[in-house]
Amino acid sequence: MRKTVLDNIPIVEALYRLQRRISFHPETEWVPVADAGGRVTAEPVRAVSSMPAYPASAMDGIAVRAAETAAASQGPLRLREGKDFIFINTGDPLPADKDAVIMIERVRELGEGIVEIDEPAIAWKHVRQAGEDVTRGEVILPSRHLLRPVDLGALLAGGVTEAAVLSKPRVAVIPTGSEIVPPGKEVGRGQIIEFNGTVFAGFLKEWGAIPDYRGIVPDEIDAIRRAVSAAVQECDIVVLNAGSSAGTRDYTWRVLEELGEVVVHGVAARPGKPVVLALIDGKPVLGLPGYPVSAYLSLEWFARPLIQSWYGLEPEEKRTATARLTRPVTVKPGATDHIRLRLGRVDKELHAFPLSRGAGATLSMVRADALLRVPAESRGFQTGEEVQVELYRSPEAIDRSLLFSGSDDPVLPCLESMLRERDPSFSLSMEWTGSLGGVEALKKGECHMAGIHARGGRGCYFQKEMKDISYVRIHLAKRRLGWITAPGNPLNIQGAEDLARTRIDLVNRPRRSGTRMLLEELLEGKGIEPAMVSGFSREALTHLRAASAVACGTADVALGLEAAASTFGLEFLPVREENYEILLRRSFYESDAGEKWMDVLRSRGFRQALESYPGYDGTRCGEVL
Amino acid sequence: MRKTVLDNIPIVEALYRLQRRISFHPETEWVPVADAGGRVTAEPVRAVSSMPAYPASAMDGIAVRAAETAAASQGPLRLREGKDFIFINTGDPLPADKDAVIMIERVRELGEGIVEIDEPAIAWKHVRQAGEDVTRGEVILPSRHLLRPVDLGALLAGGVTEAAVLSKPRVAVIPTGSEIVPPGKEVGRGQIIEFNGTVFAGFLKEWGAIPDYRGIVPDEIDAIRRAVSAAVQECDIVVLNAGSSAGTRDYTWRVLEELGEVVVHGVAARPGKPVVLALIDGKPVLGLPGYPVSAYLSLEWFARPLIQSWYGLEPEEKRTATARLTRPVTVKPGATDHIRLRLGRVDKELHAFPLSRGAGATLSMVRADALLRVPAESRGFQTGEEVQVELYRSPEAIDRSLLFSGSDDPVLPCLESMLRERDPSFSLSMEWTGSLGGVEALKKGECHMAGIHARGGRGCYFQKEMKDISYVRIHLAKRRLGWITAPGNPLNIQGAEDLARTRIDLVNRPRRSGTRMLLEELLEGKGIEPAMVSGFSREALTHLRAASAVACGTADVALGLEAAASTFGLEFLPVREENYEILLRRSFYESDAGEKWMDVLRSRGFRQALESYPGYDGTRCGEVL
Repeated sequence: MRKTVLDNIPIVEALYRLQRRISFHPETEWVPVADAGGRVTAEPVRAVSSMPAYPASAMDGIAVRAAETAAASQGPLRLREGKDFIFINTGDPLPADKDAVIMIERVRELGEGIVEIDEPAIAWKHVRQAGEDVTRGEVILPSRHLLRPVDLGALLAGGVTEAAVLSKPRVAVIPTGSEIVPPGKEVGRGQIIEFNGTVFAGFLKEWGAIPDYRGIVPDEIDAIRRAVSAAVQECDIVVLNAGSSAGTRDYTWRVLEELGEVVVHGVAARPGKPVVLALIDGKPVLGLPGYPVSAYLSLEWFARPLIQSWYGLEPEEKRTATARLTRPVTVKPGATDHIRLRLGRVDKELHAFPLSRGAGATLSMVRADALLRVPAESRGFQTGEEVQVELYRSPEAIDRSLLFSGSDDPVLPCLESMLRERDPSFSLSMEWTGSLGGVEALKKGECHMAGIHARGGRGCYFQKEMKDISYVRIHLAKRRLGWITAPGNPLNIQGAEDLARTRIDLVNRPRRSGTRMLLEELLEGKGIEPAMVSGFSREALTHLRAASAVACGTADVALGLEAAASTFGLEFLPVREENYEILLRRSFYESDAGEKWMDVLRSRGFRQALESYPGYDGTRCGEVL
Repeated sequence: MRKTVLDNIPIVEALYRLQRRISFHPETEWVPVADAGGRVTAEPVRAVSSMPAYPASAMDGIAVRAAETAAASQGPLRLREGKDFIFINTGDPLPADKDAVIMIERVRELGEGIVEIDEPAIAWKHVRQAGEDVTRGEVILPSRHLLRPVDLGALLAGGVTEAAVLSKPRVAVIPTGSEIVPPGKEVGRGQIIEFNGTVFAGFLKEWGAIPDYRGIVPDEIDAIRRAVSAAVQECDIVVLNAGSSAGTRDYTWRVLEELGEVVVHGVAARPGKPVVLALIDGKPVLGLPGYPVSAYLSLEWFARPLIQSWYGLEPEEKRTATARLTRPVTVKPGATDHIRLRLGRVDKELHAFPLSRGAGATLSMVRADALLRVPAESRGFQTGEEVQVELYRSPEAIDRSLLFSGSDDPVLPCLESMLRERDPSFSLSMEWTGSLGGVEALKKGECHMAGIHARGGRGCYFQKEMKDISYVRIHLAKRRLGWITAPGNPLNIQGAEDLARTRIDLVNRPRRSGTRMLLEELLEGKGIEPAMVSGFSREALTHLRAASAVACGTADVALGLEAAASTFGLEFLPVREENYEILLRRSFYESDAGEKWMDVLRSRGFRQALESYPGYDGTRCGEVL
């Protein structure tokens, strides 16, 4: 059975259709106040005792009966300890026969238990009345109050030691799929690690629920039926992950329709379209798509508001910012698109860099600084347009994000970590745009630094490009490039001439990358046309990905870094050494951030790290060229 | 030994003097990824496996060898299952002899294992390359990264099952004081409940530390010395609470000076001045003042930045808002004053209401929506001035705060809770300003509602005042007032005439309160001058506090609500019934919020709650007058 058309219901409408059918009834739990932080009060909480429980001195001084000091208005009055006054410290209870305190600064101690005062005391002056802070019977906190540390203090101050709080909703997390295996298990061919469940559990906990991770269920209709039935019995909300689309192996909607009622199947959102919202025994059951980005976004769209409505809480508005797009965003109308972005500020301008849009791009959720929602009726935005985005990180963190563009080098993430070990308020936002792309971004003011190859032949291609820009050129490392092949080089690849042989598949690097330029140079040297090379148009974004393609046998050869070959235990035939350089905008170089960056770059620790990479020579690291 | 002068060092400078002497060395802990949420990475984390681990189909369709489909460019091409293609689902591994996928929508199934296509496949099209999402060897996260749920997913996706994270700092919390007893214990005269420790533990946990609550230590120099020595051995940071001033029983600075070095004693801040910052064996030891507000503020000033520097993290900037003061704030220059405020919006204007400033005003921290810092050189602000404040609650929550001003009534907090049980986004911000104060606030647009007594005699005092304001007048309840005395009425108080007797002490209510007006009327009726009444000038802010004064014997009589007498089990002699009314600004009454408020006010549940209070009659509750 294959359902071909899903609904296309806007997220808000889909949520409403589910939510209006549900009414949650949280229970009341009594918990010790010390453990009640983060919980929500179930009822108004009244003080059971007053604080202070007795009238107490608000000052260091002497306690007196005010009426007995009236004579001090006529001139200095002597008082005798024990009879007329007692010494009292701040917080001490006021004796029952006293009604005022005179500050020690206004008292002359004459010795032998005699003191002198110049003014009469005023009744109840410098006295904290019983209940002044918290009065017995007073409502300390209303119902539905989220308990913060200061609230716990107020409860204890009012003599409350146990608080009535709302029970937390229990949310079942059921990962489904015959191909998924628990984290830590060996992953066979065709298998993938189940990790959405861990992410879901993390979010659910953050949102105030108890995640109930119920273990992986294979793609079998009976197994799913059993798992869902049990979860509906034991939990308040059920989340099934994957199988929510309408393919032959997507059993979710069928099981949910059988056990209850499917309210929505398919929302007008990209990614995240194949969502099933259902009701079983009055409980909400969410079938969410399996691709990580779709999964996390749809969990937030549907599970989070359910949890909020459990407590009756309203969602907090997200922080937003206005940023300028560095690339166009083109979408098909008809559904709301959710574009993850990196953000960064160069000079004053906040730039937005759209990230890879694939629903499976796990790292795009990790790298994202913000989310751009493109409304269903829009076709997108052009380069340079200002867009309103929802922030995932604080504005301060974004302001300290250093933007790096250009040639991919695996040592840069290591440099970032070293910088953060000194000052974690900084982060490095890396875009692999190739050497030419880096130069262009620097020119346009869209990054602080560009990483480039500066080889002999076309070495100074950037100098003309950059003639109007004030920048500083730094040597990072000499690094070795060469042919990467399977271990033992079974196809005996010795040079560019071998790339034209039949049955040899290349994996290339993107246009504008220095390595691709080198490859073209090598081919030209041998008189080989790119069209003669199988795989010439197949592009791997990074050196590691190119090596990965060779490692898993989908390509026979790549031109790349020795360090990448070594990561995968591949054969490496050296071709050339090249200098990897960083161009820094002078305004950045001269800033505090730039100074910290250069300090780390020139540190002994980084030099050592650099030279631990095969094929790297860090002798001149940090030299200004 | 009494030290008389404390230092007066600005907070920032005091922190700097301590911090520059400290260097923390967190350890590296290995924790399972599923438990690593909220922790901070100790080193860069690299993927140990690729995701996907193999080339996989990105679509439902058929897997083919692209080169073998070239003929489709000339016209429809038939392919045979098993020989030329296999059916493949999204996520399935691509067989080693295939290099492309054709979407099922582009395939005509002719039956018997034969399909027809119209276009050649393109190599690697609709294929997710191995490592496309995460590549083995790639740095997934840098050092010093705070792990969020999505990060855990990325780590697991990259085959990482244990993460190296920084150890958390262990912070000793040592409550000191011979008068304090643990929560839950019976509180004797002169004793107070220890609750700052619970608040401290809550904050420290929120800030990423492990609070180590070490139990109450009496005010004895040896006991404190032992406790501090042990804590310094076992913890990274030590916090002593109370005893940080310079009084005769304030041992903190003496012990710290003896065991190490006192760096600062006294900061230029109100409240919170008596702070001791010390170093023992290179570890920071904070002696913080005991009054709750001083304690919490100074913990945030000093412990929080220490924890942040443990991780190397920068503080996030606080959210701020601009609000208009409804009352003047007058301070002495020389120290930064920290004024807690309530905020609320009426029509468009954001009003700020300074809260009680006492260092011991525990509830002021609970009720506060914001904090106003008055710089050391300032003498304060005038009514109507706009001030910049730091928000404790979200702007949305503040916008849904209903401002209530006027006569104190204990049923109002109950009404608030009922409203929140329906919609917890609302809160009620109550100021007991007396009936006249309420009318005035309503007139000035500083509240949404005013609560008033509307008695016969001067019943309509507000109508002239309010003639230019559009408002709605609602009956809330008829309530009984009378004389509140000790149980059994030992002094035999029967009426206003008894208040002029010697040895009878009154506790009165504030000026502008309806109850005080009633008392004045009663005294006038008996020809008694206020000056003849002992305690006439002593004011208790609420009915409960007045009853509390009678209950603990500091006053013999109060005029107040039967409900307040009953809370404390006191004697009550009825004097009069009066109507308690609420005046609502018409703009509020007609708003959504006003509608919800009226719904609750007129609900059966509220009527029942109302009538459970002794002396209340809710028959006409909710009537528009």
